[in-house]
Amino acid sequence: MKVVLKIGGSILLPSPSVNNEVFKRWKEAITKISNQVEKMAVVVGGGRIAREYIHAADFASSYEKDLLGISITRVNAYLLMLYLKYSNLDVAFDIPTNPEDVRKLLQDRKLVVLGGYLPGNSTAGVAALTAEAISADLLLVATNVPGIFEDDPRINPNARKLKKVHISKLIQMLSVEKSVAGTYFLLDLLALKVLERSKIPTIVFDGRNPENAVNVLVSYMTKDYESIFKYGSLITF
Amino acid sequence: MKVVLKIGGSILLPSPSVNNEVFKRWKEAITKISNQVEKMAVVVGGGRIAREYIHAADFASSYEKDLLGISITRVNAYLLMLYLKYSNLDVAFDIPTNPEDVRKLLQDRKLVVLGGYLPGNSTAGVAALTAEAISADLLLVATNVPGIFEDDPRINPNARKLKKVHISKLIQMLSVEKSVAGTYFLLDLLALKVLERSKIPTIVFDGRNPENAVNVLVSYMTKDYESIFKYGSLITF
Amino acid sequence: MKVVLKIGGSILLPSPSVNNEVFKRWKEAITKISNQVEKMAVVVGGGRIAREYIHAADFASSYEKDLLGISITRVNAYLLMLYLKYSNLDVAFDIPTNPEDVRKLLQDRKLVVLGGYLPGNSTAGVAALTAEAISADLLLVATNVPGIFEDDPRINPNARKLKKVHISKLIQMLSVEKSVAGTYFLLDLLALKVLERSKIPTIVFDGRNPENAVNVLVSYMTKDYESIFKYGSLITF
Amino acid sequence: MKVVLKIGGSILLPSPSVNNEVFKRWKEAITKISNQVEKMAVVVGGGRIAREYIHAADFASSYEKDLLGISITRVNAYLLMLYLKYSNLDVAFDIPTNPEDVRKLLQDRKLVVLGGYLPGNSTAGVAALTAEAISADLLLVATNVPGIFEDDPRINPNARKLKKVHISKLIQMLSVEKSVAGTYFLLDLLALKVLERSKIPTIVFDGRNPENAVNVLVSYMTKDYESIFKYGSLITF
Amino acid sequence: MKVVLKIGGSILLPSPSVNNEVFKRWKEAITKISNQVEKMAVVVGGGRIAREYIHAADFASSYEKDLLGISITRVNAYLLMLYLKYSNLDVAFDIPTNPEDVRKLLQDRKLVVLGGYLPGNSTAGVAALTAEAISADLLLVATNVPGIFEDDPRINPNARKLKKVHISKLIQMLSVEKSVAGTYFLLDLLALKVLERSKIPTIVFDGRNPENAVNVLVSYMTKDYESIFKYGSLITF
Amino acid sequence: MKVVLKIGGSILLPSPSVNNEVFKRWKEAITKISNQVEKMAVVVGGGRIAREYIHAADFASSYEKDLLGISITRVNAYLLMLYLKYSNLDVAFDIPTNPEDVRKLLQDRKLVVLGGYLPGNSTAGVAALTAEAISADLLLVATNVPGIFEDDPRINPNARKLKKVHISKLIQMLSVEKSVAGTYFLLDLLALKVLERSKIPTIVFDGRNPENAVNVLVSYMTKDYESIFKYGSLITF
Repeated sequence: MKVVLKIGGSILLPSPSVNNEVFKRWKEAITKISNQVEKMAVVVGGGRIAREYIHAADFASSYEKDLLGISITRVNAYLLMLYLKYSNLDVAFDIPTNPEDVRKLLQDRKLVVLGGYLPGNSTAGVAALTAEAISADLLLVATNVPGIFEDDPRINPNARKLKKVHISKLIQMLSVEKSVAGTYFLLDLLALKVLERSKIPTIVFDGRNPENAVNVLVSYMTKDYESIFKYGSLITF
Repeated sequence: MKVVLKIGGSILLPSPSVNNEVFKRWKEAITKISNQVEKMAVVVGGGRIAREYIHAADFASSYEKDLLGISITRVNAYLLMLYLKYSNLDVAFDIPTNPEDVRKLLQDRKLVVLGGYLPGNSTAGVAALTAEAISADLLLVATNVPGIFEDDPRINPNARKLKKVHISKLIQMLSVEKSVAGTYFLLDLLALKVLERSKIPTIVFDGRNPENAVNVLVSYMTKDYESIFKYGSLITF
Repeated sequence: MKVVLKIGGSILLPSPSVNNEVFKRWKEAITKISNQVEKMAVVVGGGRIAREYIHAADFASSYEKDLLGISITRVNAYLLMLYLKYSNLDVAFDIPTNPEDVRKLLQDRKLVVLGGYLPGNSTAGVAALTAEAISADLLLVATNVPGIFEDDPRINPNARKLKKVHISKLIQMLSVEKSVAGTYFLLDLLALKVLERSKIPTIVFDGRNPENAVNVLVSYMTKDYESIFKYGSLITF
Repeated sequence: MKVVLKIGGSILLPSPSVNNEVFKRWKEAITKISNQVEKMAVVVGGGRIAREYIHAADFASSYEKDLLGISITRVNAYLLMLYLKYSNLDVAFDIPTNPEDVRKLLQDRKLVVLGGYLPGNSTAGVAALTAEAISADLLLVATNVPGIFEDDPRINPNARKLKKVHISKLIQMLSVEKSVAGTYFLLDLLALKVLERSKIPTIVFDGRNPENAVNVLVSYMTKDYESIFKYGSLITF
Repeated sequence: MKVVLKIGGSILLPSPSVNNEVFKRWKEAITKISNQVEKMAVVVGGGRIAREYIHAADFASSYEKDLLGISITRVNAYLLMLYLKYSNLDVAFDIPTNPEDVRKLLQDRKLVVLGGYLPGNSTAGVAALTAEAISADLLLVATNVPGIFEDDPRINPNARKLKKVHISKLIQMLSVEKSVAGTYFLLDLLALKVLERSKIPTIVFDGRNPENAVNVLVSYMTKDYESIFKYGSLITF
Repeated sequence: MKVVLKIGGSILLPSPSVNNEVFKRWKEAITKISNQVEKMAVVVGGGRIAREYIHAADFASSYEKDLLGISITRVNAYLLMLYLKYSNLDVAFDIPTNPEDVRKLLQDRKLVVLGGYLPGNSTAGVAALTAEAISADLLLVATNVPGIFEDDPRINPNARKLKKVHISKLIQMLSVEKSVAGTYFLLDLLALKVLERSKIPTIVFDGRNPENAVNVLVSYMTKDYESIFKYGSLITF
């Protein structure tokens, strides 16, 4: 089984400084997952530090701000890779910068950690494209709410959670939305279009507790869908 | 003035063989445009030959089929570059494979020709991202109908042409549509989102006659909007 | 045992379109061969599509036309690689562009597929140089006649077939000849000089039936020279 | 005249967040300097954010912590480059990662901004090696005290300032010292050895006010040594 | 006018040590030539030091021995480049390793110095291919006899010199010959085939006196063929 | 156990020509060592041939002379690698040019051979940095005297040998010294600072007999310190 795990910047760097404890807990979750799977790619975001650099370049183009943000996602990826390396996992030392390199690294290594690819492509797009490139069996998306909701649950506490949601419905929901990086929807249109065309099973789950990543993976492997719905939502095709 | 010109594969390689005549006419149009502008990037598609290779790899993943197609876009770009080089234009010999390389090449050259960047990104997305990367003042999109229509004019002869269309309306039109590479809409959602965030003036025009590219450019520079509407449509922000 | 197999473009793409059936039959032959050998490199030509691009660049230099042709050999190599990958062979995803990369890829993979290296070097030269680079035990050259003839058998039906031919005789035959790419002799002088200096056993065989590649390999391994002569010719040193 | 300017991380990122104001003032100083010189390389450090990542990797080797720090110096360099680009300076978009690339970029551009090269080499070593690589006429080192002192002036307020100091005396001072990155001496032994062998004129000055960089440069060009001593110290050979 | 100058290893490193005097004289000749031409590529061989390394690897394959030799040609090229750089010529700092890089470097620089490309390709082949790649108007080949002779003039003092010789005659002469690197003929078959197909005017001249390179160039430009014949031979097409 | 072995140029190329016998003896010693260890990196110097090129570039900068020298260390490394390859060791064909590449190559290979990294960094610095990069358990430094002496034993025959010496004492000894490449001290300040911060056990031994490398390694593994002192000196932390 091949898995891609996306950890957004707001999940990996939630507080105003690089938090060892959060990295350590993700290291533990990834170690457990890697014992269950054949190959694994972990895609990380930029978080607070990326936003700080982007803010300092407010005069620059969107393209250049994206580049700055991507360069921080790669530093985050390198730091997480070090945690995994010192946990004795078979992880590539290289942080790949395009999906071809992910493919090649995974021919010889079990694990790869990466940040962004190109301006204009969100971390979610990177995760979806990586999943397609390595023919992943599952994409796990860590978010800071317990799944996919019809409305932003942090604003609307009565928002209805969608346990199972068809990809076409998600695409429709997103199209009407004015999606911007860092807002509610963690999966943008590029990501959804790639998932749609390649029909990659995807679980969006509450990543504030990294252990949930292990739970949803095991639940998916044992087809225990009720457990998945406890921690998150499943996208269907 | 900096310009990006997108020539889709169906425009550049319309017939079942590589057609010297079409290349020659585009060479002439690009030569004229390059006399009017400071910097220019030309983005080309894969066309019939790309489709032939993709068809032969029907067993492979979408990601891999995209890679095959992209490799042909680069051969097309190389061939067009040769035409421009022998027309004594200051064109880069390199066919760049990411927007950073486009930026660097244009620091020293006037013209760059390129094909695709990454799987999952259409030629239109490449053109939009390139326009953003080089802070282009105008994006010209050659298509095989005379502009943007509310419906596919090749199927519905009564489809209404949109002379001016707001980016948000286009995004809405595209979202309900099931867009696939090679179908009617030449601009996909990624491309539109990039254009939207960077507000890059864009003209979609009838590229079956390459001379139209010169016409719409000159019309745009002289603010002769009626002339633009003759050959195509203008996207507004 | 290490083997290099050269499949010329006219063998791999004989008809006016990319033919799945031919690729599939070569995939099957290569699968069988790879079961018999330790390492294998497959060198492919450009064929009809390369010629189409070269024709469209008739105004360009020989060097540039060679580059165009080489870029198509690499697309062909990528397509054949996909066939082998989906046949579960241990093939490198990279299409190497110089012999050092072939060496490095074969340190970790069993199979490598490649196209051309440099302008001025034919596919046959690439195959010979690759064979030397990886210290191959055998070079198999697929052609569209049943071996080496004293004269072109497609023109002269009485041309005598040379079952065994000494490398020095071949070099002599070729020197008087006006050899051009695509004409009768599949092995040019560069290729022959490399074979001569490194004494690499070489079989030229009828590749119109890919299965013959398996037959001549097995015949060679069992020293059944009469079987080799049935499908092709052996170059001696 | 060719100049290298080193801006340590503690000067460029003094406060706990990326400070636009400091970047803006350095942009202005560099713009003025670039008007006076033929070529210029700016070497920047990592500062607070580098230290945060290094701290989070406290379990890793010194080599890996250096790599993390270097990756942040390059993000800082990219941000400063954007400031210079939008100030319409002829600056390379590339952030070079070795001195050969600095040389090549400066063949075509006037300005280059860079961070670190290799683990084990301090930013000061990078600056000295870069100065040697481009045959710089002057190395300017921005520090947070007004020149070179016999003792750390922030600890010992009676420390004597050395207006002029011979390189051999500096090397001797540093050798007895236990120098660690981030402590008093901004120039480590590798840097000093390179300066010594290539006799590169060097001024260490108070960089808390970026304008001082312009002052010491102009003073040096007009041989007004007393002005140099006002803002910093001169290393002699 | 674009020129390629080939200086064989036995000309550039004739004695058992790197001879400053010879390099200095070539620097002077190249300086004079560069004043006459638009672009220039200088191809150098490996000489005595290359042979020493190749001899020490007598157990290795021809391919690997070629690689060793090529690595020394590049060191020689770097040394010669330094001489030209300090003579204030507009020379690329990079030593290109394939003809595409030569083309790109010459878009921005006037001069490029290089060594070998690939095993199996002689320095003469590199020079011919480079001449084709940059559409050179003239190839100058420095040898250690005063032109092309029907027999080796160092062995047979009565060997007849060929003032003008047709490419087809040269190819014929070489084919019967057992040509090995370092023996009489400086132009091997690959080189001749490339020259033949692209019809590149070529002068083989006595390079023991570097000044002769200037003489034959000037003679060629002024169509003073008798002067060419004094120092060397002309290949015709 | 991971080991780095440094063989200086004066040890590997002692006589005025490339000496097969010395290479062969080192091949044998390395073969034996590689049987005892998990991973091994061998760092080689430039020796006589590097000095010859550096001498011929006496007009150039120290930076450029270092580059010339480094290019020869890499040729030496390639030659030694060939010896190891033909001894059937699992050695990388690539000669890495930075420590990251050493790390990556050793993920898949057992042995790596390399020369220099950057101008300004001695071979000893390369060896120390490589040892740090791969978290080596031991650094073996082959020198041409039997260990570390208080004075140069080749000049002062009464110089006292230091069987065990603390890193801080070595740093102190070196700081007063005017160290230049090729003089007595094989470990320069950069190397010592890296060893100090990472506390890498280091043995300096008499490398005129390559077999001593095997002896000191085995002695170290069996904690037979008296045997180490017979062939060399141990640096302590």
